[in-house]
Amino acid sequence: MSRFWSKLVNELTPYVPGEQPKTTNLIKLNTNENPYAPSPLALKAISAEANDKLRLYPDPESSALKACIADYHQLKPQQVFIGNGSDEVLAHCFQALLKQDKPLLFPDITYSFYTVYSQLYQIEYQRISLADDFSINLDDFQQPNGGVIFPNPNAPTGKLLVLDSIETFLQKNTDTVVVVDEAYIDFGGQSAVTLVDKYPNLLVVQTLSKSRSLAGLRVGFAIGNANLIEALERVKNSFNSYPMDRLSTAGAIAAFEDETYFSRQCQKIINSREWLTGQLSATGFNVVPSVANFVFVSHASQPAEKIAEKLRAQKIIVRHFKQSRIDNYLRITIGTQQECESLVAALKEIV
Amino acid sequence: MSRFWSKLVNELTPYVPGEQPKTTNLIKLNTNENPYAPSPLALKAISAEANDKLRLYPDPESSALKACIADYHQLKPQQVFIGNGSDEVLAHCFQALLKQDKPLLFPDITYSFYTVYSQLYQIEYQRISLADDFSINLDDFQQPNGGVIFPNPNAPTGKLLVLDSIETFLQKNTDTVVVVDEAYIDFGGQSAVTLVDKYPNLLVVQTLSKSRSLAGLRVGFAIGNANLIEALERVKNSFNSYPMDRLSTAGAIAAFEDETYFSRQCQKIINSREWLTGQLSATGFNVVPSVANFVFVSHASQPAEKIAEKLRAQKIIVRHFKQSRIDNYLRITIGTQQECESLVAALKEIV
Repeated sequence: MSRFWSKLVNELTPYVPGEQPKTTNLIKLNTNENPYAPSPLALKAISAEANDKLRLYPDPESSALKACIADYHQLKPQQVFIGNGSDEVLAHCFQALLKQDKPLLFPDITYSFYTVYSQLYQIEYQRISLADDFSINLDDFQQPNGGVIFPNPNAPTGKLLVLDSIETFLQKNTDTVVVVDEAYIDFGGQSAVTLVDKYPNLLVVQTLSKSRSLAGLRVGFAIGNANLIEALERVKNSFNSYPMDRLSTAGAIAAFEDETYFSRQCQKIINSREWLTGQLSATGFNVVPSVANFVFVSHASQPAEKIAEKLRAQKIIVRHFKQSRIDNYLRITIGTQQECESLVAALKEIV
Repeated sequence: MSRFWSKLVNELTPYVPGEQPKTTNLIKLNTNENPYAPSPLALKAISAEANDKLRLYPDPESSALKACIADYHQLKPQQVFIGNGSDEVLAHCFQALLKQDKPLLFPDITYSFYTVYSQLYQIEYQRISLADDFSINLDDFQQPNGGVIFPNPNAPTGKLLVLDSIETFLQKNTDTVVVVDEAYIDFGGQSAVTLVDKYPNLLVVQTLSKSRSLAGLRVGFAIGNANLIEALERVKNSFNSYPMDRLSTAGAIAAFEDETYFSRQCQKIINSREWLTGQLSATGFNVVPSVANFVFVSHASQPAEKIAEKLRAQKIIVRHFKQSRIDNYLRITIGTQQECESLVAALKEIV
C-alpha cells in the first residue's frame, strides 16, 4: 500500500504460481510441466535464431507462427492470435471480450487465475458450482451472462467435457463469448477448435507449455472467428506491439512441424497416467478420471496436506490448494514413468 | 466493431509500430534498431540455454536478471522490475502508478504509445507543449498532476534534458510518480538511475532493444524505490506470471556482463551520429541536436514526406510522422558508418 499506487493496485490479490524451486535434485510434480524434453528440432531452430538478427525487432504480427498454427488446424491466419504464454492470451480475452455488463461465468473449482484477471479488469463474475463428482454441468451456465470461460479438461480436476456437450451449450448460448481454455487438451481430449467456423462466439485458447514441453519459451495462442481475434489484436497493440521474441517464434514453429515427436511424447504421458491411476486406486486413493497431464487425488484416510509434506521430505513436490471443497486433494503432474514409479513407492510407504 | 467486443475495445486506437519490411535488401533506418550485432557472449548464452530445461517454466521473479541489473547499477534487486520489452514495462507503469484522479502529464511531441496506454487504462492526460526548439521545459509540468512521464532523450526529437533540471523538478514534484523513459540514454545522456535512492517517486525505464542490440529479444526494465517496484509486480502477477522466457533472460544477463562490447558499440554509433549531423547540416538540413541513436531533421526547401518517398525508391527507409508540428521532419536511425554514408549520398542527390 502506498500513496503512489493506483487505486486498483491496492485491490489486487495477485496470482501465485506453483513453486519453481532453485534446487535440482527434486521430483517436480507441482506445475504440470512436461517431463520430456522439447522436440530436438525446436531446440535446433532456437539455436539457429541466436544470431545477429536479434538486433532487429521481431515481426509484430507473428505472421509466420500464425500461418503455421492456422495451417496445422486447417484455418486462416486471421483466426489465430499469438501471445506470451496462454496466461497473456487469457488476460487479453478478459479485457477485450469478457468484460461486459452482465457477470462472467466460470466454475467454482477451476484455474485460479480467472478471479485474478476479473479483479485486474474489474469484471463482475459468478462462480458456478461443479457437481459432486467435479464435473462441469453446462446446463447450469445457461443463464444471463456477459461471457463464459472454463478449462477443458478442467484444472485442477483433469475432468473432460465431451465436445457434444460444448456444442449443445453453444447452440443455446449465442449472444456472449464462450472461451474454452484447452491448456491440457492434447492428452486425450477432443478440441473445440473444430467448432470455431460454426460458432462466431467461440474462442479456444491453447499453449505450448504442456504438450509441447515448452513452458520455458512462453507461447500461447487463441483460435476463433476473425472478429474475436481482431478484438485481441486491438488490445495487444495497445499494450505491447512485440510480445513474441524471435527465438520463441522460431522454436514454436519447429515444435508444430515435428508432429511425430509430439504425438509420441503425449502418448507416453497418457500411458503413465493410466498406469499411475491404477496404482493409486489400488493404494486407497480416489483418483478423479483425468484427461490431462496430471491427476487429482484424495486418500480415504490420510489428509492431503500431510501427504504433500511427507512427499516433500522425500524430495517429491506436488500441489495442494488450500481452497474449500478441494483442500483434501492433491494435484500431481504426470512425470516420466520412472518418476511415477518413485512417487507410487513413496506414497505406498506414506499411506 | 462487434457485439462480442468489450466497450473498451471499440474506443481503442492501437499503436502502429514502424514498418518491419519482409524484404532484406534495404537500409533500414526507421525503427531505431542498433545496426551492430548483439554481444557474441549474449548469442552464446542464448544458444546454451536452448536445452531440455525449456520444458520447465522460467523463474517467475526473473531473480537472476534482477540481481544482475541491480549489481550493474549498484542497487538492490527489489529496486528492479523486469518486463517483456520496455513497452510492457511502461504499460504496467500506466496501470499501476500513473492512473490517478488528476491528469497525467506528458509532452505534446513524444513517444506516441503514451496516449495509447492512456486510452487502454482510461487515464485522463494533458499534453504539455515543447518549446519551439523542441526542448522539454519541466517548469511547465509544475501544475496539479496525477503523474508525469517523458522520454529522456525525448523521442522522436533526440533532445536531452540534463540531469540537473530533472532533479530540480523532482524537488518540487514530490507527490506523484515521475517516470523517465530512458530507452535512448546510453548514447550520450546521463541516467536518472543515480537519483532513485533520493526520490521515492522516481521511476526510470530502460530497454535492451537499442544500446544492447537486442530488439529481437524483448527485455526492458524499470528501476526505482522498492515500493514503486512492488506496485508493478502486483500488476504483472495479476496479468502474466512468466513474461520472460528462459532464453531472453540468459541473453540479457550475458549482454550486461559484456561491458567492453557495449561501450564500444555505443561509441561507434555516437561517432556516426556526429559525422552524420555535420554532413546533413552542410546539405541544408536543420538537425535537432541529438543524444540518441537517431537524428530528427527537416530540410529548408524539400518537404519531409517527399524526401522519405525518394529515399524509399533508393531502398532506404526512414520514419515520417503525420503529426502537427513535426510533419516536416524525418526521424533517421543511425546506421553503420557505411549506411550513414549511403544515406548522405542519396540525400545529396535528392535535395
